[in-house]
Amino acid sequence: MKESILETKDQFHEYAKKMSAYNEALGLMFWDLRTGAPKNGAEQRSEVIGMLSSELFEMSTSNEMAAYLAKLSPVMDQLDPMTQKLIEECQKEYDRNKKIPASEYREYVVLQSKAEGKWEEAKEKADFDMFKPYLEKLVAFTKRFIDYWGYEGNKYNTLLDMYEPGVTVEVLDKVFGDLRDQIVPLVHKISKSEHKPKTDFLFEHFPKERQKDFSLKILEQIGYDFNSGRLDETVHPFAIGLNPGDVRVTTKYDEKDWRTAVFGTIHEGGHALYEQNISKDLMGTPLCTGTSMGIHESQSLFYENFVGRNHSFWKQNYALLKDYSTGQFDSVELDDFYRAINESKPSLIRIEADELTYALHIIIRYEIEKGLFNDEIEVKDLPEIWNQKYEEYLGIRPSHNGEGVLQDVHWAGGSFGYFPSYALGYMYAAQLKRAMVEDIPHYEELLEKGDLAPVREWLTEHVHQWGKMKKPLEIIREVTGEGLNAQYLADYLTEKYSKVYSLN
Amino acid sequence: MKESILETKDQFHEYAKKMSAYNEALGLMFWDLRTGAPKNGAEQRSEVIGMLSSELFEMSTSNEMAAYLAKLSPVMDQLDPMTQKLIEECQKEYDRNKKIPASEYREYVVLQSKAEGKWEEAKEKADFDMFKPYLEKLVAFTKRFIDYWGYEGNKYNTLLDMYEPGVTVEVLDKVFGDLRDQIVPLVHKISKSEHKPKTDFLFEHFPKERQKDFSLKILEQIGYDFNSGRLDETVHPFAIGLNPGDVRVTTKYDEKDWRTAVFGTIHEGGHALYEQNISKDLMGTPLCTGTSMGIHESQSLFYENFVGRNHSFWKQNYALLKDYSTGQFDSVELDDFYRAINESKPSLIRIEADELTYALHIIIRYEIEKGLFNDEIEVKDLPEIWNQKYEEYLGIRPSHNGEGVLQDVHWAGGSFGYFPSYALGYMYAAQLKRAMVEDIPHYEELLEKGDLAPVREWLTEHVHQWGKMKKPLEIIREVTGEGLNAQYLADYLTEKYSKVYSLN
Repeated sequence: MKESILETKDQFHEYAKKMSAYNEALGLMFWDLRTGAPKNGAEQRSEVIGMLSSELFEMSTSNEMAAYLAKLSPVMDQLDPMTQKLIEECQKEYDRNKKIPASEYREYVVLQSKAEGKWEEAKEKADFDMFKPYLEKLVAFTKRFIDYWGYEGNKYNTLLDMYEPGVTVEVLDKVFGDLRDQIVPLVHKISKSEHKPKTDFLFEHFPKERQKDFSLKILEQIGYDFNSGRLDETVHPFAIGLNPGDVRVTTKYDEKDWRTAVFGTIHEGGHALYEQNISKDLMGTPLCTGTSMGIHESQSLFYENFVGRNHSFWKQNYALLKDYSTGQFDSVELDDFYRAINESKPSLIRIEADELTYALHIIIRYEIEKGLFNDEIEVKDLPEIWNQKYEEYLGIRPSHNGEGVLQDVHWAGGSFGYFPSYALGYMYAAQLKRAMVEDIPHYEELLEKGDLAPVREWLTEHVHQWGKMKKPLEIIREVTGEGLNAQYLADYLTEKYSKVYSLN
Repeated sequence: MKESILETKDQFHEYAKKMSAYNEALGLMFWDLRTGAPKNGAEQRSEVIGMLSSELFEMSTSNEMAAYLAKLSPVMDQLDPMTQKLIEECQKEYDRNKKIPASEYREYVVLQSKAEGKWEEAKEKADFDMFKPYLEKLVAFTKRFIDYWGYEGNKYNTLLDMYEPGVTVEVLDKVFGDLRDQIVPLVHKISKSEHKPKTDFLFEHFPKERQKDFSLKILEQIGYDFNSGRLDETVHPFAIGLNPGDVRVTTKYDEKDWRTAVFGTIHEGGHALYEQNISKDLMGTPLCTGTSMGIHESQSLFYENFVGRNHSFWKQNYALLKDYSTGQFDSVELDDFYRAINESKPSLIRIEADELTYALHIIIRYEIEKGLFNDEIEVKDLPEIWNQKYEEYLGIRPSHNGEGVLQDVHWAGGSFGYFPSYALGYMYAAQLKRAMVEDIPHYEELLEKGDLAPVREWLTEHVHQWGKMKKPLEIIREVTGEGLNAQYLADYLTEKYSKVYSLN
């Protein structure tokens, strides 16, 4: 390799390192604002966040970046894999940010922020007409952006690619169709089942401090490293990886429903295990994070559902839960407890949905977004289409748009193409689980013993360590020997919920 | 004003805003590292801090900055006062950073970091010879820097100016001399006094949580705004102003000595009141912070000593302290309590010194630094000179260099000229207090009632609100009608300690 290329490569790495540094600083400010930052400082802090974010945006589209890409792209094959990936990521971002005329992008950013404000008001008042003109403009802008960016096969693919590289409409139509066709009848059967679990004991008073102590125990059990993280309280829980040595989990406590904190913490803990176990070699580069929204979600859902809602897991942890609670479980059998925490019923609100029905909420949104960007659905018809689909898939119908089409913030922020990742997370998780038990046939025994290290190690080996070095479907294919397949999730759900609801 | 100047002015403000944003992000990372950041993330976090710091350094010396200064300085008189101050500050920093050849500065930074490591080891082993070559180099570098920077009157003035603009050797020789001549005999008298306060009850067990609750009460009482701040635990307590709406206080708890947390919190609270009450007009600019180390220290010391160690303050708060403690004060009279918390005895360690003897520790360091930079003292002679001065001023002699010349980190970090600020803080505080009671003659009554708002408001009016808009001695002169005068501190200490120790 020529010396000048080596030199450029080093400078490029330095440059990328700086971008990572900005990201880490921004991440800490985000975490701080959402945990304990004093409220009077928030306005100025937002200014600071805005300023550093635009700095980062400028770095991603600067002439310096362009020069690195122009010089290194042609000699890709002479470069190490990490540099190759770095170029690929930066090129993608460069194209995405650079292809939109600056004036148009500025206009769009203003619209976004206005739309979010308007959406909040519209949701409150359940008034879709108030939000409609904003949504129409957001869709129109996004369509123009797709034209700038270009697309392959389907316009919506370009949006999907931002969150789940490699996943296309072709893939999703297949897997979501398969899933829908198997879940919908299951959901309907359950609605009619007479074996509804008793759940009243779940809602008795559970003091916050005890929930916290129990959550900490469980976090420790799943392998969360407290020397590389901490648990804090917040309003909308999240996990954030600042670097692999500093991955923070947040949760919220509801003294009338301990499940919020405990399953929430396990969920965020799953995200955190991903970020804590990325290879140290990627530290300080933009590759040192989860490879996609969907794979990230697969890790949180793996722990929440395949560990946290698993019967074996509670064999020993139920006694622990009893220790920390104030007596409400004392006369409840483990089996009844297990059925209670796996209750499933159709609901209108996505973020309150259970493991079984969740995917249907996503499939509805996917079908609508796909229609919107292929000119098959118009914004004005959304409320009616939304309500019809809820009726068809879940058997319930929103009584107003606030609990219907207006419930999520995503569209107000222009985040079209994001929703599918949530459902992909479920499918990836089920598919990974299937592969895992081939390597770890005594999976259930490990859970019974609370010995979760082998589980975490398997996920680190196959998923965590790679960060952004492998694409989502690359990981799935390498681990499972096939592409995305909805059958594993469908089988798991069918088997589990048939038992929980004693279906024949 | 020409349009092009207006435009440059706006761009300059934008540029300064960005520098402030970096500073705020750095501040948060600093706070986080010293409060609850997980330890495994610290190494990478330090990288990030390093990267953002150099970015900030580069901004302060960039061609862009040079161009702003070149264009705006000649039209100073046409600009508003805030822009003038901004130019002045940026010019000063530009000169300081730019006049040193880059290669020499890099060499110095490496030396600094090596010296700090070596100092730690040398202090541990009480081995001055181990640290000596590093200190010699640091002094030599600093002397060369002074040559680059230039100086007026005395070489040491250049160093003083970095921490306490406007304060010179001429000023300090006078005030430190005055102070020393009055305090030394007082300290000697007290050593011989037979009226030593009883203090054993101070060291009984005081649970951490209760110390914290009491500290929070006191913080509230002095006017600390919890919507613009928070209290956390740390190892080396500090206060930090990220912006006026986010000023954080930290403390540490010693269950065998509650004074550490309570007086520490009041002290840091004083710093915090300063930063919380800077005018919102300065928000987001580099002028939005304390004007100097010394004035900052005057605010913390005002609250620690003139409020926290004041007899009137405890008239009502002693009952509160009793409520929070576990009985150790129940049979102790207020007067005995007051004498106990104002015990004074010569000690070897600066950071453990009391209000009366503290200034002597500083004066010793001042005399030594002045000698070093005027070629009157050589590094090799420091241990002996140090020990002689301690004997002369405080009547005690270190038994080894670990508790002598090696005790402070400042020199290892190259921070020559910093020490005097601490003693200036005492003098400023006493001088401000004298001016305050002319406006608020019922000062003692207010303390008795716990009504501290007028005190805080007075300090905000005369000190806090100005941020860096006024220089230290400008503030003192405007408030008190005269320059720095050590007599107020000397009088206060003489009167107070004569009473506490029943001297005649």
